[in-house]
Amino acid sequence: MGEWKDLSRDELLGLRAECAAGYGRLKAMGLKLDMSRGKPSPDIIDLSNGLLEAPIPYVTEDGTDARNYGVPTGIAEFRRLFGELLGLEPDSIIVGNNASLELMHDFYSRLYLFGTLGCKPWCRLEKVRFLCPSPGYDRHFAISQAFGTEMTAIPMTEDGPDMDAVEEAAGSDEAVKGIWCVPLYSNPQGAVYSDETVRRLASMKTAAPDFRIFWDNAYGVHHVFGEHRLADIFRLAREHGNEDRVYYFFSTSKLSFPGGGVGMAAASPANIAEQRRHISVQTIGYDKLSQLRAARFLKSPENIRAHMREIGAMLRPKFETVMETLERELGGTGLVSWTRPKGGYFLAVDTLEGCAGAVVALAKEAGTTLTPAGATFPYGKDPKDTNIRIAPTYPELGELRSAMELFCLCVKLVSADRLLAR
Amino acid sequence: MGEWKDLSRDELLGLRAECAAGYGRLKAMGLKLDMSRGKPSPDIIDLSNGLLEAPIPYVTEDGTDARNYGVPTGIAEFRRLFGELLGLEPDSIIVGNNASLELMHDFYSRLYLFGTLGCKPWCRLEKVRFLCPSPGYDRHFAISQAFGTEMTAIPMTEDGPDMDAVEEAAGSDEAVKGIWCVPLYSNPQGAVYSDETVRRLASMKTAAPDFRIFWDNAYGVHHVFGEHRLADIFRLAREHGNEDRVYYFFSTSKLSFPGGGVGMAAASPANIAEQRRHISVQTIGYDKLSQLRAARFLKSPENIRAHMREIGAMLRPKFETVMETLERELGGTGLVSWTRPKGGYFLAVDTLEGCAGAVVALAKEAGTTLTPAGATFPYGKDPKDTNIRIAPTYPELGELRSAMELFCLCVKLVSADRLLAR
Repeated sequence: MGEWKDLSRDELLGLRAECAAGYGRLKAMGLKLDMSRGKPSPDIIDLSNGLLEAPIPYVTEDGTDARNYGVPTGIAEFRRLFGELLGLEPDSIIVGNNASLELMHDFYSRLYLFGTLGCKPWCRLEKVRFLCPSPGYDRHFAISQAFGTEMTAIPMTEDGPDMDAVEEAAGSDEAVKGIWCVPLYSNPQGAVYSDETVRRLASMKTAAPDFRIFWDNAYGVHHVFGEHRLADIFRLAREHGNEDRVYYFFSTSKLSFPGGGVGMAAASPANIAEQRRHISVQTIGYDKLSQLRAARFLKSPENIRAHMREIGAMLRPKFETVMETLERELGGTGLVSWTRPKGGYFLAVDTLEGCAGAVVALAKEAGTTLTPAGATFPYGKDPKDTNIRIAPTYPELGELRSAMELFCLCVKLVSADRLLAR
Repeated sequence: MGEWKDLSRDELLGLRAECAAGYGRLKAMGLKLDMSRGKPSPDIIDLSNGLLEAPIPYVTEDGTDARNYGVPTGIAEFRRLFGELLGLEPDSIIVGNNASLELMHDFYSRLYLFGTLGCKPWCRLEKVRFLCPSPGYDRHFAISQAFGTEMTAIPMTEDGPDMDAVEEAAGSDEAVKGIWCVPLYSNPQGAVYSDETVRRLASMKTAAPDFRIFWDNAYGVHHVFGEHRLADIFRLAREHGNEDRVYYFFSTSKLSFPGGGVGMAAASPANIAEQRRHISVQTIGYDKLSQLRAARFLKSPENIRAHMREIGAMLRPKFETVMETLERELGGTGLVSWTRPKGGYFLAVDTLEGCAGAVVALAKEAGTTLTPAGATFPYGKDPKDTNIRIAPTYPELGELRSAMELFCLCVKLVSADRLLAR
C-alpha cells in the first residue's frame, strides 16, 4: 500500500471509512482503560506481597528501635543494600519517604529558598532557567513550572540529550541552573544515555557555579530488553572537579509497591551535609519501618536483580505487543515513528505534525486514556503536536492489544483527515 | 529550712557540701539517660505492636489498591476516622507522611515560595515576623529560623499565649505573618489554651491578610490528668470570617509509632484546594499502606480514646514521680518553680535567673541529658536563662527517679553557687 501521503483522495476516503467502522466497533466494546501513567499491573505488584505478609522486625541490625524517633537520613542496612546495588557510597545516600519525586521537589525547593554551598538562593535571582530534554517526564517539568523556572527544551537523541545544545546553553548563560535527566531507559523514549553523554554532562563547563544535574535514575535496574549500564556519573564528575553538580535519585516504587516504596537521594559529601541540615529542620526522621521492611524483603543486590528479571519478563510481552501492533497496523504508512525502548516503563510515538492531541482525544472518546498530548514537553506544549507517550505496563495483554488497535485506528483516522485537508 | 536566699553563707556552704556528695554518688552510678526529647518508652510503643503483626490489607473500603500510585490527599477511611475523632470535616483533611512536622515545614515553605490565596510570597518581602509563645517548641522555632523569619517571643500564661501581646503585635504590624501554637497540653508547660484564648486568636484583627495560625494539636487526645477540651477554632474562625487563618496539624506519632505514624493537616476549603495543587507537584501520593494500617488498627474514635487512656495511665506515674521529687527536694526552697501539666508530654521548670544552662551541663556530666537550656526560646536563647523542659516519658520509673534526684541536686548546687556569689 505504501505511504499514505502518496495515496489518492479516493484511496484515503476508502481507508478512512474502514477505520471509522473499526473504531465504531471498538468503541461499542466499552473499553475502560487508563494508560496515562507508568503504573505497574497488580500481578507485578503481587511479586512484592512478601512485604505485607512477613512478620515485620522493628529492630535494625545496629539495635535501633525503628518504631521510635530518629535516624533522619535513613537506617544503615538500607543505605548499604542500595549503595551496593547502585554503586554508591552508603554515606552518600539519604533515604526519604515513599517517593523520590518528593526528594527531587524538596532538593529543588531548597535551591530556591536557601541556595546551595554559599550561592545565592534562586528565589532572589531575576531569572532561573532549566534544561529539559524533551520529550521528557511531565512531573519533572511540573516542578520547574511551579517554581516559575524558565524551561528550555533540549532535543533528545538515542544517546540522551543533544549535548551540543546542553553545553552551549549551560556554558554561556549563568541563569541556566540545571538539567532534568532520566539517564537509563528515559521517560518516554526508553533510551540509554551513552558513556559519552554522561562524560560530557559530568565534565562540561557551566556558567553557573551552582548548576545541578537532577539525575533521576528511576529505572536504574528496570531492564526489559538486555541489561544496559550507565557510566558512573559521580566518578566522572569527581575526576573533573564537579562532584557537587550531581543530585542522584532512585526509589523502590517500581521494585515493590509504587505507592509504598522508599525514595532515596545521593550526592557529594558537601551536598549531603547541607541536605542533612535542611532535613533536620523538616522532620525528626522518615519512616524507618518502611525502610526496614524494604531492606529485609529485598535482601541483597542479587535478590533484587533476580526480582527485576521476573518483572522484566512480565513487561517484555507488553512492550512487544505494543511494538508488534504498531508495526502491523502502521508500519510503512509513514504516519508515525516510534522508539524501541531498551527498558523502563514507556515508549514514545511521533505522529504527523498537528495530530497527537486529536489522536489522544479520539482514543479517550472510545474509553482509552493516554498520557495527554504535550505532557512530554515543558509547559505541556508540544510545539509540533506529534509526541504521545505510551505506558503499556498496567493493562493486561488482552486489554493492551485492544487498546493498541484502537490507538492505531485513531492515528489512521486523524492522519487521514489531516491528509485529506491538504 | 525555708528559702535558700535567706540562708547564711555557712548554711549554704553546708548544704552545698551535702549536695556535692550526693551528686558524686549519683555520678558514680554511671547513669546513661536521655531525657532531651519527647519520646515514648518502648512499653508504651508496644501497645501498638498490632500494627506490625496484623495481616495487612491492601485494598481500601472504596476498592483502591493502596500499594499502587494515587490518592494524593489520603484515603477516605483514614480521613473519616480522624475527622470524627477531632471534630474536623473529612474533606478538610490532607493526610501526609509519617511526620506532621514535615507538613508544617512544607506549608510554611509554600508561604515563602508561592504565597497564599493571592498574597505575595513571603520570600519577596523585606521582613517576615512570627509570634513564638515562649517557652515553646524548639522544632517550630527551628523552622522559622531556617527561613530567616524574625521571631518575636510572646509570654505564655496558664491559659495560652498572652493575648494582649499577640493582638498588639498581629494587629499593628503587617510583617507579623503568623503564630506557632501547641494549644492542648502545650510544649513544654502542659497548659491548655482557654476558650477565651482560642476565641481571641480566631477573631482578632490582623494587619496581614495572610496571617496564619500554625495550630499544632500534637497532643489533641493525649490526656494524662483529666480529659481537657479545646474550643473549636475552625468554627470560631468561620464565625468571624477568618477561616483561612488556621492551619491545623495532628499526627498518630504519639498514638502508635513515633517514627512510623501518619501526619495530617486540616484547613479551610480554599486552603485545602491550594495545598492540593502544591502537593500534586511534590508527590504522586503519600504512603497509603501506612494510612490503611493505622486506620484498621486504630479502628474507631472510641478505640483510640481507650488506647489513649492506657497510654495516659502509663504516663501518669512518670509525671507524678517528677512532680513529687521536685516537691520533696525543692519545695519551699524558692530555687525553682514548675508547671503542673494537664496532659501531653512535658513540664517546664524555671530556676533562679542565670542557672538553667549550668544545671543542664551539670546533669549531663553525670550522665543525664536534658533538653538544652534555651531550646524553648526563639534562637535557642532564653533571655533569663531559667527555663528547662523536662521530658519524663521515655525513662523507666526507677531511672526517672534517679534522674530527677540528680536534677534536684544539680539545681541546688548551681543555685548555691549563685547565691554564694552574691
